[in-house]
Amino acid sequence: MKNINLRPMLKPESVAIIGASRDPDKVGHVILQNYINAGYSGKLYAVNRSGEDIIGVKCYKSIIDIKERIDLAVIAIPAQFVPEALEECGKAGTRTVIVVSGGFSEIGNDALQDELAGIAEKYNMPTLGPNCLGVMDPRSRVDTLFLPNYKFSRPSVGGVSFVCQSGAVGSTVLDLISGEGFGLSKFISYGNAANVDEVDILRYLMEDPETKVILMYIEGIKRGKEFIELAKRITKIKPVIVLKAGRTAAGQAAARSHTAALAGSYEAHVAVFRQFGFTIAEDISDLMHFAKIFSSESLPKGNRTAIITNGGGTGVLTTDAIGLSGLQMATLSAKSSAELKKVMPPLVNIRNPLDLAGDAEEKRYGDALSILGADENIDLFIVIALFQTPGADSRVAAKLISFKQSLDKPMIVISIGADYTKMHKIMMESSGLPVYDSPTAAVRSLAELLKYAKYRKQ
Amino acid sequence: MKNINLRPMLKPESVAIIGASRDPDKVGHVILQNYINAGYSGKLYAVNRSGEDIIGVKCYKSIIDIKERIDLAVIAIPAQFVPEALEECGKAGTRTVIVVSGGFSEIGNDALQDELAGIAEKYNMPTLGPNCLGVMDPRSRVDTLFLPNYKFSRPSVGGVSFVCQSGAVGSTVLDLISGEGFGLSKFISYGNAANVDEVDILRYLMEDPETKVILMYIEGIKRGKEFIELAKRITKIKPVIVLKAGRTAAGQAAARSHTAALAGSYEAHVAVFRQFGFTIAEDISDLMHFAKIFSSESLPKGNRTAIITNGGGTGVLTTDAIGLSGLQMATLSAKSSAELKKVMPPLVNIRNPLDLAGDAEEKRYGDALSILGADENIDLFIVIALFQTPGADSRVAAKLISFKQSLDKPMIVISIGADYTKMHKIMMESSGLPVYDSPTAAVRSLAELLKYAKYRKQ
Repeated sequence: MKNINLRPMLKPESVAIIGASRDPDKVGHVILQNYINAGYSGKLYAVNRSGEDIIGVKCYKSIIDIKERIDLAVIAIPAQFVPEALEECGKAGTRTVIVVSGGFSEIGNDALQDELAGIAEKYNMPTLGPNCLGVMDPRSRVDTLFLPNYKFSRPSVGGVSFVCQSGAVGSTVLDLISGEGFGLSKFISYGNAANVDEVDILRYLMEDPETKVILMYIEGIKRGKEFIELAKRITKIKPVIVLKAGRTAAGQAAARSHTAALAGSYEAHVAVFRQFGFTIAEDISDLMHFAKIFSSESLPKGNRTAIITNGGGTGVLTTDAIGLSGLQMATLSAKSSAELKKVMPPLVNIRNPLDLAGDAEEKRYGDALSILGADENIDLFIVIALFQTPGADSRVAAKLISFKQSLDKPMIVISIGADYTKMHKIMMESSGLPVYDSPTAAVRSLAELLKYAKYRKQ
Repeated sequence: MKNINLRPMLKPESVAIIGASRDPDKVGHVILQNYINAGYSGKLYAVNRSGEDIIGVKCYKSIIDIKERIDLAVIAIPAQFVPEALEECGKAGTRTVIVVSGGFSEIGNDALQDELAGIAEKYNMPTLGPNCLGVMDPRSRVDTLFLPNYKFSRPSVGGVSFVCQSGAVGSTVLDLISGEGFGLSKFISYGNAANVDEVDILRYLMEDPETKVILMYIEGIKRGKEFIELAKRITKIKPVIVLKAGRTAAGQAAARSHTAALAGSYEAHVAVFRQFGFTIAEDISDLMHFAKIFSSESLPKGNRTAIITNGGGTGVLTTDAIGLSGLQMATLSAKSSAELKKVMPPLVNIRNPLDLAGDAEEKRYGDALSILGADENIDLFIVIALFQTPGADSRVAAKLISFKQSLDKPMIVISIGADYTKMHKIMMESSGLPVYDSPTAAVRSLAELLKYAKYRKQ
């Protein structure tokens, strides 16, 4: 069993961009420019056949000429030239390589890909790709993505790592993560998986202390037996949320032409995932919704849920979602009910969901939460704060944040709306309080967290 | 069968705010202020017991003192004073009334609500509410929502009308609509439905030429038989998308305490809805997703779908969604395939989904679309444009818009991401091209459009 060390790829002290170019439309230019923009502090070299310096970066004709052992070489040149460049990396003792170039098995060029895999193996040189976006690590400021900065927002530092076979899914999800309160630990796009595959990557992330939650988008698994061995261990340590493509025959055929993946039976894959406590995402939105709650919440002890709301209809819809999800509506204790009766205005029915009414402000939220926070019949809190109403403002958001800080049970917020609402979402999420814009998404996420908690307890 | 004319409520030439107040925290103040801000051009009167003018608006002690027949009176005073004010409206010959005040059947005050209903009936005076947000019509600039402008964004003029029993669901959905390319025709929040109910409102909107699509959030239906009579006719004229609360026993109980609705069996309701061609939304996001496609697309003639993408993985996920939805992947004609082969670079596999690759720009999209636009094997187009990639920019968005303008088949776009992507979403949607941020949502919406098209063909 090979055990691959990806540290030089993610925390390199020296990087060489092979195919660095002066032409701003070329991938090799964008990658070099992005390294400079990201403030990467290690040694940076350009390699191309001309040997002329590029954007102020020292350039060599071959990686061999650098006369220094390079931690990471990024190859961005046409497919037919890749084997030669990779061979030179091997001769130069390069520690790790990323091949972003496409034009291999995904278009039937198996021989070229096999050649590439052979060279990587010969030199025992972990090689990511080909046909991939490479890696991003906001802590080390490594960023091999050939995507212009103005077109997509890089996520901030956090605990979620994202392993993604597809570049497109990878870049869109990263762009979405940039708008969320949770941040990124590592992004690894591995494309055709000629050498480094999902097993190698997961094994590395399992041990990585910076990674709290792993997200995955996969089209196919190469080494089933080793994957299962790993799957048994990994979810005992941290949650893994997986989106598996190829649910349908047409989707499997499309995956084959995308990353040459043998997608295999979706049901068989999902059965294995479930058996080993993976969380199954059904689409990209699920990845985002689940990452949000898994990265900020401790594991729940039970499923009895309280809903506190300033919107009646939204409370009803959330109650429906609870009933459909396997969670349970909590029965408020007699003590809570009596205390609420004392402090709530007569318009408020004392029940669960607790509808604080459209004029609820900071104080009413605070009163309700401090009473229910002590209620032993409640395991989970869903607080609906609709900021369109006259009473809801930043003081309500601040109250929810401070309540959460003294609470040792999971709590999520539902806030639905445009700009004014989004401002409060950012405020709450940057304090570790997950905010959802749909009752269904909120409750499904809570239900998945609970499912994982049960698996861990086994 | 009563046939209620809601025109004076939605297009009033004169409005009186009963309970208008100088105190900016009072509902009666916010409503008056919002009328002024909205630029309402009819006659505006304030009514309160003091009789002193408010924010420059002439004030009367009673609506009777105005000595003019008022089209719409908005009542925003404590529940116990509502019957007297409503009686005065009746005596003054007021054409329509909205009671925004709460404190009736939703908290068990059935007697007070019956009194209100009796007065409305006695004077044959259509009365909306109580316990509601009232109405909004961006064309007439009528806006009775007691929600401050800075807290939520009012939608622009469009063809979607939204009938909503809940104020909270109503205001959040309006806020969300403000960020979408489609606009609002009418918003009607009817709360406890003491007098005007969903049958009256739907009957009005069925005939309303400004309304192309009807969205509904309902907790319970009061007049089942009349609703069914109407349901048979309405979907033959325009689509109705309905979100029904009370799917679970707990949700039904919550609805009872919210708008005193007898939610009844969800399954029974949904069975009736489906029988008569209603489109069923399962949550608030569905309302938005379905409204988007129903308001901008003509009805499809078949289900054979082509996917054109610049992101392979996103193409695979969309293909999966097609397979799970009842739609069908189109088989490209031999002619299309041959023509594509000629113009596409060798990296592009000629198949469906057609992956144009991550460097696809305006020209490649244009070439692919002009060939596939003429393909008789295709009924529906899904174009994935991921704007994070080097080649995708405003020229690609403009190309999609101009292609759509010459196409007589439904076409939707999937673009996923943060700010740069949202800018292009606005650009495309304001030209009538629906844009989705999730393959699942996009395909489900297309499938619902197809289902409705089939119903209409019967």
